[in-house]
Amino acid sequence: MRGLDEHRAATLALATPLPTVEVHLLDALGLVLAEDVATPEALPRWDNSAMDGYAVRAADVAAARPDAPVRLRVVADLAAGSDDEPEVTPGAAARIMTGAPVPPGADAVVPVELTATAVTGGAWEPDEGAVLVREPVATGAHVRCAGDDAAAGDTVLRAGALVGPAHVAAAASVGRSTLVVHRRPRVAVVSTGDELVPPGEPLRRGQIPDSNSWLLAAAAREAGADVLRLGPERDDPAALHRLLRALDAGEHGAVDAIVTSGGVSAGAYDVVKAALADEPGVAFVPVAVQPGKPQGLGRLPGGTPVWTLPGNPVSSATSFEVFVRPALLRMRGLVDVERPRVPAVAADSWSTPVGRAQLMPVVRADPGADSGTRPGALASDGADPAAARSGDGRVAVRRATPRGSGSHLVARLAVAQGLAVIPAGVEQVRPGDSLEVFWT
Amino acid sequence: MRGLDEHRAATLALATPLPTVEVHLLDALGLVLAEDVATPEALPRWDNSAMDGYAVRAADVAAARPDAPVRLRVVADLAAGSDDEPEVTPGAAARIMTGAPVPPGADAVVPVELTATAVTGGAWEPDEGAVLVREPVATGAHVRCAGDDAAAGDTVLRAGALVGPAHVAAAASVGRSTLVVHRRPRVAVVSTGDELVPPGEPLRRGQIPDSNSWLLAAAAREAGADVLRLGPERDDPAALHRLLRALDAGEHGAVDAIVTSGGVSAGAYDVVKAALADEPGVAFVPVAVQPGKPQGLGRLPGGTPVWTLPGNPVSSATSFEVFVRPALLRMRGLVDVERPRVPAVAADSWSTPVGRAQLMPVVRADPGADSGTRPGALASDGADPAAARSGDGRVAVRRATPRGSGSHLVARLAVAQGLAVIPAGVEQVRPGDSLEVFWT
Repeated sequence: MRGLDEHRAATLALATPLPTVEVHLLDALGLVLAEDVATPEALPRWDNSAMDGYAVRAADVAAARPDAPVRLRVVADLAAGSDDEPEVTPGAAARIMTGAPVPPGADAVVPVELTATAVTGGAWEPDEGAVLVREPVATGAHVRCAGDDAAAGDTVLRAGALVGPAHVAAAASVGRSTLVVHRRPRVAVVSTGDELVPPGEPLRRGQIPDSNSWLLAAAAREAGADVLRLGPERDDPAALHRLLRALDAGEHGAVDAIVTSGGVSAGAYDVVKAALADEPGVAFVPVAVQPGKPQGLGRLPGGTPVWTLPGNPVSSATSFEVFVRPALLRMRGLVDVERPRVPAVAADSWSTPVGRAQLMPVVRADPGADSGTRPGALASDGADPAAARSGDGRVAVRRATPRGSGSHLVARLAVAQGLAVIPAGVEQVRPGDSLEVFWT
Repeated sequence: MRGLDEHRAATLALATPLPTVEVHLLDALGLVLAEDVATPEALPRWDNSAMDGYAVRAADVAAARPDAPVRLRVVADLAAGSDDEPEVTPGAAARIMTGAPVPPGADAVVPVELTATAVTGGAWEPDEGAVLVREPVATGAHVRCAGDDAAAGDTVLRAGALVGPAHVAAAASVGRSTLVVHRRPRVAVVSTGDELVPPGEPLRRGQIPDSNSWLLAAAAREAGADVLRLGPERDDPAALHRLLRALDAGEHGAVDAIVTSGGVSAGAYDVVKAALADEPGVAFVPVAVQPGKPQGLGRLPGGTPVWTLPGNPVSSATSFEVFVRPALLRMRGLVDVERPRVPAVAADSWSTPVGRAQLMPVVRADPGADSGTRPGALASDGADPAAARSGDGRVAVRRATPRGSGSHLVARLAVAQGLAVIPAGVEQVRPGDSLEVFWT
């Protein structure tokens, strides 16, 4: 049997970053940058004001005190966006708004709170054309210097970055309205099995709703792919072979990967195995993992990578997670395609198969944990896997399906918050044992 | 000044879960379930086989041994999806595939590996119409019992769950092709400022590219909203007021929230403040936070909540994160709308303002940390904030902008991996100090 890590390496070897495409800024969100982005000019482009106030020569106001303010002539009024370049000569000041370029001659900004436009007796009063400065400011005070953020030519974004809002903003700030990114993979998902009917249709004895094509389509979409969902397909090897060849040939639109479920074990009706038996590029290999031992992998003649996953829903889900998802992320251009494995501690006891790694759906063990939320699964998910930490900071977890770990428990799978990865050498997990978990 | 938490509470008070809508399974991905989903029937519906093999009466094979196999008549061939219900009488067996219903009379499944179809001398040979069982099986062996996964009527998904792939699969498995979810918020984002020009257009002195509308549009989209991006709008209070009223009235399509940037501080050109000065539902309040002190908040006459964020890019970004994002998640129907705050330790030193909380963009302090990736930002992001842990498991962080924390550093913001929240009482952060960080 092939080891878990060996098969992961084989699946990653099928994936290369997809071609690049230039897209508008917002369309780059969630995609992976395929270029370094440099700023053609310094950021900020000019020394500019960090405050609303008055641009002054610091030397002019060195002696300013609240009871002896310095009076300066106001020679200009610089709104943000103004292209005025008034000279601030000794004794002069320019009214300036946050972000406006500091005019020639000025070397500091006095915040408006430290000024008035006149004093009459003890009260501040208007004085057309002049400002009274009540306190001194240091040279450079409240001035944002040109190049503070980046010098001309500096790289502000690097190829390989997953584009988020701050990347979009940085690109805009250097004058870019488009970005070059790797395009999304388009993935065809095909479920197989004569027992499957589309969800919502009536069932007779022996039939069950197809859930795998929906599971895998959703998982592929969550992994950043566009998805073509097909199935359930009948247990007809010739027809399935024609469909897979048609997908490979682009007859349903170009696809970058094909994922099937079902029909890969040792039974008499293993349609995927039969359909691909004569494809030299595809191999069926047992992998030392539970669930998910029967796996198929390879390329169709047109070059499309194909993953044939087992049909039990939990096996499909865990196989996608550890074998397909990293490959899709690699196609998107990401370098680091593994979820972080977080140290955890078992709060439960279960046995694991001899000689096989185990992927066990788990939940946090704290009593208040809401099984309806999935920590870390989406940026928008507010749940906190840190809430059920042991004294040493590790999260305590138990099985998501305490009555059993059967790979058919599709309803229970929805409560899982992560997968524990138990190495092949372990035969029993006991409360208090150290585990590695990734939140899904 | 209003405290950070008080203003957060005020912004959340503007947000209520949006109306529900029934969508197809895949379209529910990433939305929040607005109904409990129960299974109308037991899952599995029938006792069914967990293996490819033979359905038998366990008592018939109790004496089976490899050197003395028990011969059973094969009375049926049950593929998955078969609606056959053959009676398995004493001495009989039914060939059965994984997932097929266990026929009446049978109480166990013998895996195909433990059978043969005949023995001739020492070798296993075909024997039409019969099977040889080499080992005994316990009653119930390799049978998945009806109701194992869920009993009829059991709730398998709860309202409030963020729909992920496993939820989609569970819904399909109980026969649902649609789900009732809260619809996404539609958010209008408006940047303001005479100094702003669309990114990519030529700049004259005093002008800069608009980055805020792109930043906020991307952040709103990442928070699960559909976005109408507008701007840059000129510093014309009457025109801006007309635009905001038109948005509130649905003239640009229905919007559930409006977010503006810029024009809210104490200067002479604060267009948003001027535009909304006469709107009784909107208040401008200083908030004890750095950056992001000038905030406006309220409802327009048509009921649309409006957030007016400051215009410095870092202020806009952090204000969106702590004030707008939780409200959008609440509109989506999520209950837990806060990102987890993770204990961390400072690897850097900086001062913080007296009497104001500070939101400091930070990066992991390990030397190998790649500033191009954002841990935890998207499900698809493989980076690991756990990589730079201190000895006690806490992540060490330093400022993302070590030369300064100016709120104009938009290019630098792209390297930030999270925000440290420094309470108002702290005036100086020193290496080794405990921090709370959320990864963005």
